[in-house]
Amino acid sequence: MITLRTDYTIKTERLTAAKNALEEIKQDPMAGWLTVPVNDNELNRMKSAAEKIQSDSKYLVCIGIGGSYLGHKAVIDAIGNKSGVKVLYAGNSLSTTAFGEVLDEIGSNDFSVNVISKSGTTTEPAIAFRLFKAILKNRYGSNWTSRVYATTDAKKGALHDEAEKNGYESFVVPNNIGGRYSVLTAVGILPMLVAGIDVDTMLKAARTAAGWQEYDFGLAMNPANEDPAVHTFEEAVRYAIIRQDLYADEGLEMEVLASFEPRFATFAEWWKQLFGESEGKQNKGIFPASVVYTTDLHSLGQYMQEGRRNIFETVVKITTPSDREIKVPSEDGNLDGLDYLVGQNLDYINDKALEATVNAHKNGGIPVLSLEINDLKEKSIGELIYFFELACAISAKLSGVNPFDQPGVEAYKTNMFKLLGKPGF
Amino acid sequence: MITLRTDYTIKTERLTAAKNALEEIKQDPMAGWLTVPVNDNELNRMKSAAEKIQSDSKYLVCIGIGGSYLGHKAVIDAIGNKSGVKVLYAGNSLSTTAFGEVLDEIGSNDFSVNVISKSGTTTEPAIAFRLFKAILKNRYGSNWTSRVYATTDAKKGALHDEAEKNGYESFVVPNNIGGRYSVLTAVGILPMLVAGIDVDTMLKAARTAAGWQEYDFGLAMNPANEDPAVHTFEEAVRYAIIRQDLYADEGLEMEVLASFEPRFATFAEWWKQLFGESEGKQNKGIFPASVVYTTDLHSLGQYMQEGRRNIFETVVKITTPSDREIKVPSEDGNLDGLDYLVGQNLDYINDKALEATVNAHKNGGIPVLSLEINDLKEKSIGELIYFFELACAISAKLSGVNPFDQPGVEAYKTNMFKLLGKPGF
Repeated sequence: MITLRTDYTIKTERLTAAKNALEEIKQDPMAGWLTVPVNDNELNRMKSAAEKIQSDSKYLVCIGIGGSYLGHKAVIDAIGNKSGVKVLYAGNSLSTTAFGEVLDEIGSNDFSVNVISKSGTTTEPAIAFRLFKAILKNRYGSNWTSRVYATTDAKKGALHDEAEKNGYESFVVPNNIGGRYSVLTAVGILPMLVAGIDVDTMLKAARTAAGWQEYDFGLAMNPANEDPAVHTFEEAVRYAIIRQDLYADEGLEMEVLASFEPRFATFAEWWKQLFGESEGKQNKGIFPASVVYTTDLHSLGQYMQEGRRNIFETVVKITTPSDREIKVPSEDGNLDGLDYLVGQNLDYINDKALEATVNAHKNGGIPVLSLEINDLKEKSIGELIYFFELACAISAKLSGVNPFDQPGVEAYKTNMFKLLGKPGF
Repeated sequence: MITLRTDYTIKTERLTAAKNALEEIKQDPMAGWLTVPVNDNELNRMKSAAEKIQSDSKYLVCIGIGGSYLGHKAVIDAIGNKSGVKVLYAGNSLSTTAFGEVLDEIGSNDFSVNVISKSGTTTEPAIAFRLFKAILKNRYGSNWTSRVYATTDAKKGALHDEAEKNGYESFVVPNNIGGRYSVLTAVGILPMLVAGIDVDTMLKAARTAAGWQEYDFGLAMNPANEDPAVHTFEEAVRYAIIRQDLYADEGLEMEVLASFEPRFATFAEWWKQLFGESEGKQNKGIFPASVVYTTDLHSLGQYMQEGRRNIFETVVKITTPSDREIKVPSEDGNLDGLDYLVGQNLDYINDKALEATVNAHKNGGIPVLSLEINDLKEKSIGELIYFFELACAISAKLSGVNPFDQPGVEAYKTNMFKLLGKPGF
């Protein structure tokens, strides 16, 4: 259950615009994620692959960049890895040191590779894949191909062709879902399964949220229906509209996504890509930034409290962040003055810090939206992914840009290919 | 050697203002960091303590928040831990999960604690310290105090008093240096020494940079002196002035610090605290954000290229990021089209990506400053710390705020103490 708490009232004209946006999104050829489509046969193949990897590997190296790695890393970091296989990431930078650290960690342990690339020619993952292929061949001889899992285009492209030639087990990057909306496709599912994530529950939660498409909302926003899908849908529409109110009407240029849970940090990175890449075009867009409190209250907290008032903040409140309890112990003498907290669980104190921060920042002149989720488990995370994807698409549409393209990403690549002497550039 | 590459010319009136700012900074009671003061006897005691920890501990748990942990974590992450002791961090959040993960990692291994807190009553570190004291007492009996190292006020405060009572070995948080400027004091030195960092070289580099104070610059910016201190000083003054030109004159409200090296990411977090906390007040301040490319070119790259033009970017170019070489291997068939890169070192390709990105972003309408440093080793890092601290103090002064206070950090604390029922609130 996702609840958005805010004082803002929704303007009728923006609600009408949001409904029009939703109609456009439904028709968009890149809105495949809207129905959370996963082929059952492919899902079963992925489950078998995950079992095999868990039985023969200590590490799974996920090779991919941008949307090809951020979503599943976000989920695995947030929920926690529940399997004996550690998931490592390569091909998401060009740093010798970063690549070397992955090699050092693997050492002589058994590993498998999941290469995730629609084309197979993106520079960073293609280089990493070459390097790992050389190691696999050297270590496993002619069996090396059984340790490679390719997630790529169904019909064409360099990686597709190579997978067919070499006989890698392959999974499909759907043609109608862009990278940043792809976490609930094969792109994210195989690594999540390997990490022991209950993907079925995640998919079910996202599909429940996708149920809003069954309704004809007409002119009323709230069809007075208790269906949970309607609730998540409504909150996503409200979040999208309020974002654009704050941006277009109040001139706030930056959104800070704040959580009080360090393991939510990668999820915030995924959110930054989702919104930044969807909205940052045509010289427009809310700049997405993120913080983890209370840690960052002691670094960016001063700015948030008293700096330029061109920011709004979305605080993610996790009702039950952990099943674990760690309580403040008693201590003789009370030299540190903490006795008033004895017996309190850390997460309880953390929750009070959240409440205190929301009030402090509001008093400091920062509009604060509170987004409440139950926990960092599969159901909540599946729902949250769908919520943000839907809200992002609506919000981008409201600001008049295409939520599904990323034309600006090519600029540095073209320059780089020229500098590196790539044939044809 | 730090070199700032930029097309901007320095306006005479801002140069005059910068010189006045420097005079004010020199007089400020909180500008102790300006001369990089470290007491030799204390440094020797820290070296002995580090040796003891290296001999009797597998982990050093650093307990501190904000400026009490960010600086040394930034340095250790950037340079790399060279010792057998892993440095862990606690007391920088209130998350049960985060604290539990530190406990799980330590397990039954031997560890020591460095508690870093000027007062000893900051909630997060005080709670963590209580928890670790209980574990230490349980594990080591009456010897537990020999595993606690306290970095705190020289004369007063809860932690000072407790250290005296319990006989912890203690080091001093200087009274004339605030948290975010304190990495080259005992606050940062003990953890860095434990991690095998060559602190002497860092201090020497920072002190060389501090040598600018020996000169009377008069009205000329450049006294035509080849002294390296003058060079670093000049670049810091230029960086500060250009930042304020871009902010005050061109209305750019955000600075993105970009590196192409994942292990620089924590250093960027330190930079964010330094500048955000120094400048974000009186409803003013450049919002500090950071990215690691090429990773984030596939997430925030779209925004940087084509989003709102209210940003400038400072790109950190590391001439020799690693002594290691990892080269693109040849492969039969060239299915991935990478043959044009065969034999190239990853860091070489990364450097071309940097050049390509700077050009792309400039063409996209983003002012880009390039900050070149030699490597991520002690001398360069020591110099860079001093460079940023000096530039930050000047920049804050130029924008008319006090670089050394942080009045806004109290707001959430006061609210929190009320909610938690702390006596007196």
